[in-house]
Amino acid sequence: MHFDTIAAISTPMGEGAIAIVRISGEDAWTIADRIFRSPAALALSEQPSHTIHYGHLHNPATAEIVEEVMVSIMKGPKTFTREDIVEINCHGGITSVNRVLELVLTEGARLAEPGEFTKRAFLNGRIDLSQAEAVMDLIRAKTDKAMNVALNQMEGKLSHLIGDLRQALLETLAQVEVNIDYPEYDDVEEVTIPLMIEKGEWVRDEIDQLLRTSSQGKILREGLSTVIVGRPNVGKSSLLNSLVQENKAIVTDIAGTTRDIIEEYVNVRGVPLRLVDTAGIRETEDIVERIGVERSRQVLKEADLILLMVNSSEPLTDEDERLFEAVAGMDVLVIVNKTDLPAKIDLQRVYEVAGKERVITTSILQEQGITELEEAIASLFFEGSIESNDMTYVSNARHIALLKQARNTIEDAVMAAQTGVPIDMIQIDVTRTWEILGEIIGDTVQDSLITELFSKFCLGK
Amino acid sequence: MHFDTIAAISTPMGEGAIAIVRISGEDAWTIADRIFRSPAALALSEQPSHTIHYGHLHNPATAEIVEEVMVSIMKGPKTFTREDIVEINCHGGITSVNRVLELVLTEGARLAEPGEFTKRAFLNGRIDLSQAEAVMDLIRAKTDKAMNVALNQMEGKLSHLIGDLRQALLETLAQVEVNIDYPEYDDVEEVTIPLMIEKGEWVRDEIDQLLRTSSQGKILREGLSTVIVGRPNVGKSSLLNSLVQENKAIVTDIAGTTRDIIEEYVNVRGVPLRLVDTAGIRETEDIVERIGVERSRQVLKEADLILLMVNSSEPLTDEDERLFEAVAGMDVLVIVNKTDLPAKIDLQRVYEVAGKERVITTSILQEQGITELEEAIASLFFEGSIESNDMTYVSNARHIALLKQARNTIEDAVMAAQTGVPIDMIQIDVTRTWEILGEIIGDTVQDSLITELFSKFCLGK
Repeated sequence: MHFDTIAAISTPMGEGAIAIVRISGEDAWTIADRIFRSPAALALSEQPSHTIHYGHLHNPATAEIVEEVMVSIMKGPKTFTREDIVEINCHGGITSVNRVLELVLTEGARLAEPGEFTKRAFLNGRIDLSQAEAVMDLIRAKTDKAMNVALNQMEGKLSHLIGDLRQALLETLAQVEVNIDYPEYDDVEEVTIPLMIEKGEWVRDEIDQLLRTSSQGKILREGLSTVIVGRPNVGKSSLLNSLVQENKAIVTDIAGTTRDIIEEYVNVRGVPLRLVDTAGIRETEDIVERIGVERSRQVLKEADLILLMVNSSEPLTDEDERLFEAVAGMDVLVIVNKTDLPAKIDLQRVYEVAGKERVITTSILQEQGITELEEAIASLFFEGSIESNDMTYVSNARHIALLKQARNTIEDAVMAAQTGVPIDMIQIDVTRTWEILGEIIGDTVQDSLITELFSKFCLGK
Repeated sequence: MHFDTIAAISTPMGEGAIAIVRISGEDAWTIADRIFRSPAALALSEQPSHTIHYGHLHNPATAEIVEEVMVSIMKGPKTFTREDIVEINCHGGITSVNRVLELVLTEGARLAEPGEFTKRAFLNGRIDLSQAEAVMDLIRAKTDKAMNVALNQMEGKLSHLIGDLRQALLETLAQVEVNIDYPEYDDVEEVTIPLMIEKGEWVRDEIDQLLRTSSQGKILREGLSTVIVGRPNVGKSSLLNSLVQENKAIVTDIAGTTRDIIEEYVNVRGVPLRLVDTAGIRETEDIVERIGVERSRQVLKEADLILLMVNSSEPLTDEDERLFEAVAGMDVLVIVNKTDLPAKIDLQRVYEVAGKERVITTSILQEQGITELEEAIASLFFEGSIESNDMTYVSNARHIALLKQARNTIEDAVMAAQTGVPIDMIQIDVTRTWEILGEIIGDTVQDSLITELFSKFCLGK
């Protein structure tokens, strides 16, 4: 395919030692040649691929030195995008890297859209859609486990699995074609229906197995949305600080150029907790009051995990009980804090209102019970299975939705086959399943299905 | 010199496409070889210098894949540090880059101290001290002009200038040595004193010229510390937002891992304004009350520029007048805002209390007068001279302090020579000037001075 030449800053914005401006496209080397001057006066375009060159960027219009740089040149197709790539390593300041980008754009590159390099890697066939999606997952990974999931997906593990499923469906469809083309052979139908049921059930079971990983995969990918609730002075801020301090991998998302801090990530035994609305917790103690407010209810409703704190050194209050009611039916861990003080709480009653939810006693002040709390969080969501690094987790909401659709259509096909529905009706469901699975890896469509079928299974016709 | 092998993350922390872990030292290539696996199974250590290689990092202990990477290998001395360097380009996520760094450290590299790569470039003699200092200035540059100042310094412009001055002093000292060694020749002394005065005055004048650039250089480097003051509702927040919105190059410093935002930078026609305590302005309107507080007085005192706002649609109040008193003697621009409303202010009185300070009328709501304000800010500090890109600005406080010292000692030497002080007394001041200037470029000391003198000017002795 032919695309124009794009450029963008490929390192995070901020002050660092090095920043990179990446250029991809057929003019990449030419643009670099126009602005780059090396001490040896060499022409980049005459250098071998995958080499690094020291020199200065000059503005051809003003002859001014723009930056001192290292330029890496890579000839397609052995590159990330399969196109010619130039990476300009400059000093990592904001002014510096913006100035380099500006020069590159002036010299004819177009500013790349978000994700456009990876999109080209996909459009140029180097990776499929699920692999392309994994690239972003990998970058956003908040924990080692999440990164392993993304790395596996990027390496094509999910793609291979989906490929196997689609292959099985294709073989079934080829058999159906034979059936339709040669209706005079009764024995073909006798073979087709059982094959369809067998393959269909296999595909369904495989999808089920994948979907079983999805809730964990989604948590690994997106973090466990966590809200700490409790009356004022029960120790919410202390718990938050304790979680943040004990778990080093803290990531703060800062949206774009604004200063609004949205969420805070804490890595608890491989489970990324996304602590929601923590600023509110830190700044005010009025979360109980705000329970009545619609927005707070919404935050609670969308949380994956509620940490409900009560005070061991005070009797349980009506407010406490109202909190238990507000979070009923959600995933809750009950924390009875301040066990360092004389106990005045009716623990019996706490267990009553907690129902089946786990109750943990802590003294966050004296650093007691925190290990138990962290273990409870990890086991609540992973029960040990998080340890398996090789597992293919489905983590992407789009993939999960498509897998659920595919599961339904293949289940329909199996049921139809079992109840004697005409084979061309069943064929529609199988084909649809093949298409839906294809959407996961970005493959398409009716046309290619047909081409594939006839090229593969044509009986001399 | 021999140093151990160091490694660090060289890109800013955050989510980006690419992050770099840099390794420098004699084990750099060996470490890379142990953890890198390419599809072609090549050994990095057998590849040519300045080449780029695609592959995966493996953990030798667990045989697990750690990341998909591009590895750049560069053999010293043609590198930034003059040592062997490996740059590992990995996916730009925080988990990813930390995991790569961890692996490199496990395999024997030591975590680099801040600035240690540049320090090695200096210790290994690739750049001098003022060039090394310019590297950080370049990274921190908030505007194009500031970056040009740093780039010039990094390219050695300041070093050459200092070198010329020291050369002149050396020649004088050589002449003095001749004088002392051969006291029998009276004519030598006759030559020495005028030469000393001539060279000394030239050095002093050159230093004066450099120091004249220093206030502008310092502003370019550190930003113009700016405070907006005025009564509540006079339009301080609107002015701040207007400055921030109109000038795209906004840089937000976030100290370390905390969330406290310290300052905000706005690029006004090449002048970096460092808006101090802007959070306070945004959140509260009580800056007038706080004028009485010691801390606020301190902020005002340390500011390079005060933007004092009054309300055109209200009479001048006692509070306004107190503000004028508080900022007396500072660099102030007086802004008469809200000219869109019927004027009730006594402009005559404003000009009276403003004294020699410039008064600008604005309607920030209707975007009027902002251009005039920006021009006033730029001309107040640069009067056009900022346009000259080639000028060597001294911007570093250390350099400025040393230059002032050097200026004083050489002035002493000149005065002494003019008043017939014995030549060996004058020699001390000249030598001291040479040393002080040497500190700017990190050169040393008595020993090298002596060696240099005798090696250069020895009359056959």
